Amino acid sequence: MTETIPAATVGASGPLSPAALHGELGAVRRGLRATDDEELLARVVLAALAEPGDGVAGRLAAALGHARLAALLRAGTGAAALHEAAVAAGETLAARQLGQAMDRWRPRMDAARIALGVRRAAAIGARLLVPGDEAWPSGLDDLGEHAPHLLWVRGDPGALRTPGVALVGARAATGYGQGVAIELAAGLADRGMGVVSGGAYGIDGAAHRSALASGGTTVAYLAGGIDRLYPAGHEELLRSIIERGAVASEVPPGSAPTKWRFLQRNRCIAAASAATVVVEAGLRSGSLNTAAHAATLGRPLGAVPGPVTSPASAGCHRLLREFDAVCIVDAGQAGELAGIEPGELDRPAASTAAASPAPPQPARAGSTEVRVRDALSRRTARSVGEIAARSGLSTAEVMGVLGRLDLEGAASRRPEGWVAVRAAG
Amino acid sequence: MTETIPAATVGASGPLSPAALHGELGAVRRGLRATDDEELLARVVLAALAEPGDGVAGRLAAALGHARLAALLRAGTGAAALHEAAVAAGETLAARQLGQAMDRWRPRMDAARIALGVRRAAAIGARLLVPGDEAWPSGLDDLGEHAPHLLWVRGDPGALRTPGVALVGARAATGYGQGVAIELAAGLADRGMGVVSGGAYGIDGAAHRSALASGGTTVAYLAGGIDRLYPAGHEELLRSIIERGAVASEVPPGSAPTKWRFLQRNRCIAAASAATVVVEAGLRSGSLNTAAHAATLGRPLGAVPGPVTSPASAGCHRLLREFDAVCIVDAGQAGELAGIEPGELDRPAASTAAASPAPPQPARAGSTEVRVRDALSRRTARSVGEIAARSGLSTAEVMGVLGRLDLEGAASRRPEGWVAVRAAG
Repeated sequence: MTETIPAATVGASGPLSPAALHGELGAVRRGLRATDDEELLARVVLAALAEPGDGVAGRLAAALGHARLAALLRAGTGAAALHEAAVAAGETLAARQLGQAMDRWRPRMDAARIALGVRRAAAIGARLLVPGDEAWPSGLDDLGEHAPHLLWVRGDPGALRTPGVALVGARAATGYGQGVAIELAAGLADRGMGVVSGGAYGIDGAAHRSALASGGTTVAYLAGGIDRLYPAGHEELLRSIIERGAVASEVPPGSAPTKWRFLQRNRCIAAASAATVVVEAGLRSGSLNTAAHAATLGRPLGAVPGPVTSPASAGCHRLLREFDAVCIVDAGQAGELAGIEPGELDRPAASTAAASPAPPQPARAGSTEVRVRDALSRRTARSVGEIAARSGLSTAEVMGVLGRLDLEGAASRRPEGWVAVRAAG
Repeated sequence: MTETIPAATVGASGPLSPAALHGELGAVRRGLRATDDEELLARVVLAALAEPGDGVAGRLAAALGHARLAALLRAGTGAAALHEAAVAAGETLAARQLGQAMDRWRPRMDAARIALGVRRAAAIGARLLVPGDEAWPSGLDDLGEHAPHLLWVRGDPGALRTPGVALVGARAATGYGQGVAIELAAGLADRGMGVVSGGAYGIDGAAHRSALASGGTTVAYLAGGIDRLYPAGHEELLRSIIERGAVASEVPPGSAPTKWRFLQRNRCIAAASAATVVVEAGLRSGSLNTAAHAATLGRPLGAVPGPVTSPASAGCHRLLREFDAVCIVDAGQAGELAGIEPGELDRPAASTAAASPAPPQPARAGSTEVRVRDALSRRTARSVGEIAARSGLSTAEVMGVLGRLDLEGAASRRPEGWVAVRAAG
């Protein structure tokens, strides 16, 4: 059913030629920085031939440039000649590895099908983003040879550059997990941060919805093509995200959301975000894969704890315990994880914190006031000597503290001795 | 009311003389290694004069020996002469600091009262433990100059040497927190570990009760004297602990459980345990003080997470976030924190863990099986070429995987192509 297309049909005049697709390429690039059609189409070809995360494609493209690599592939260059070109460009990829990659790509060299992807994107008003575009989420570049060649985007491409926190978690979320996702997303939106997720049921959906409800920016990275709003039950939610944020994918329109692509999509979520927070996840949740990508990339990783009796939080607890994830309990901490200084919005919380105790410290001799207060009674008046004996302090220290407590109204001198006074209010 | 006693009355023939208390000292030491009455009484005197954690007393005793220090104090030696003796013994304590300490101790130099403490202990069948005794919890020595001079113990002194985990937490515990304390204590008891706590309401009580119910060893360190079973509502529980474990305190019988002594008692709980786990604690819980002592001592510190919506867990989350506490979700992890290798008892749990996924790993090209499975349908038969194009794999790879899946019964070859087969069971 797939055929290896003779070089002629994918050349300058075939269905995949820049000339044939000039109109569509213009449509999917409108308003973006000029990039020549040849380069754009080369990325489209690579993204169609190689599965997301294919490191051989990434290394060859880095060595030869996308345009040259695509031209060589479209000219029907064999593995040996391609390897020679790569070696000449300084790439040390083994010939065998390259041969295997060519074997993977060959079944997909279907010019008409690749061209159809571009036409579909143009038809639904999608945009094609490539590295270097202003809206390109530059964090993706940290994926190196595994970085996507492009992104198909529906909605506002600018949303992809809003500094964001990935809020991810299990599809099978509990009411607790969804509640926390809602609080975190709303708080991040209030702080001007974007919320990045995967559009799935459960935690993802709660995070996206709450960001939208708070007037925030939200981006969903999809595993399949952007023309297939998956899962079906989230079609309306994903349309809302397209209207007020963005939906993005690196696979061509028409692609199915396979399990493999979910795993690879997760690397984009982690790489495109300033930090990743796993809100609720069982031990087998796919969101732990996103967490692993974040950790591999050196991105700050947070996890929200939950009851230890809840299997739905067991994955989060594992991240806290074994993967050095930071314990996150509110949006202020999620923002801080992403490098946002606690600002205006955290002030009320900060002032509460000021009223809360200083970091726990082992108590040491010296807290004479605590000891004098311990030795005072509200009912029985006590002499300075007795207070000294009870508190284990000298009479001089006791008198000093009693004077202070007297001024503060916390102790009172009576003819028969000193008594404690309950603080007013 | 307290009087400075002339040296004569505290000398060889006074109420505090080793001779006068020989019988009582024998009673509180029965069965323990011989230590001369002079040394024992010296520690009793120091523990009565200085509040728990008094570093000056600790440093002087380390420099001069308890017996010599007590003898100097009982002889009415002045601060200047004591300082001279300390300096001669190599102790660099400032004269002013020593003078202040003497001023703190002077109001307590009441020989009759100190002797009464020993008599009370003997009357209730308590034991007096000192460093070097077989049952002395050697971890206390890590407190250095702040270490207790002795311990008054009711129950089985041997319980103090059972390697134990401190389970501590808020008095105002929730049902969740108490439930977790019960599970942890029972699991530790099953592993032969002791449960150390403070005998308080809430988490402490749940931990003690569960250890007892599981036939385990449990020890309660009290802030007041061991003759005052505090809090009153736990008198029966504390009596059960005395029967089947031990209750210990460094302050003389008759002492009140003051706030200061609670804070100092916490250092004993942390130091006497192989690890400290805070089960449930609000931001102001006293158990955070125990946690701080554990951290200062370099003892492993764990915290049990809870719902972020529960203020009763906020202190635990703070420990996880800011104090590098280890996230603890079950007794196996608590035991591991204390250095107990997961053993026989963890096998069932371990075999469950073996069935659970490997540590989360970013997925990379190479998981060809996942990709071939993604490309297979249970309803529509597909050719090898189509599966190759869908999966982004070479036809050779696809055939290899299909052969394997066929053997495993996960894929099946039909005249019109390959289909996926749902795994049985």
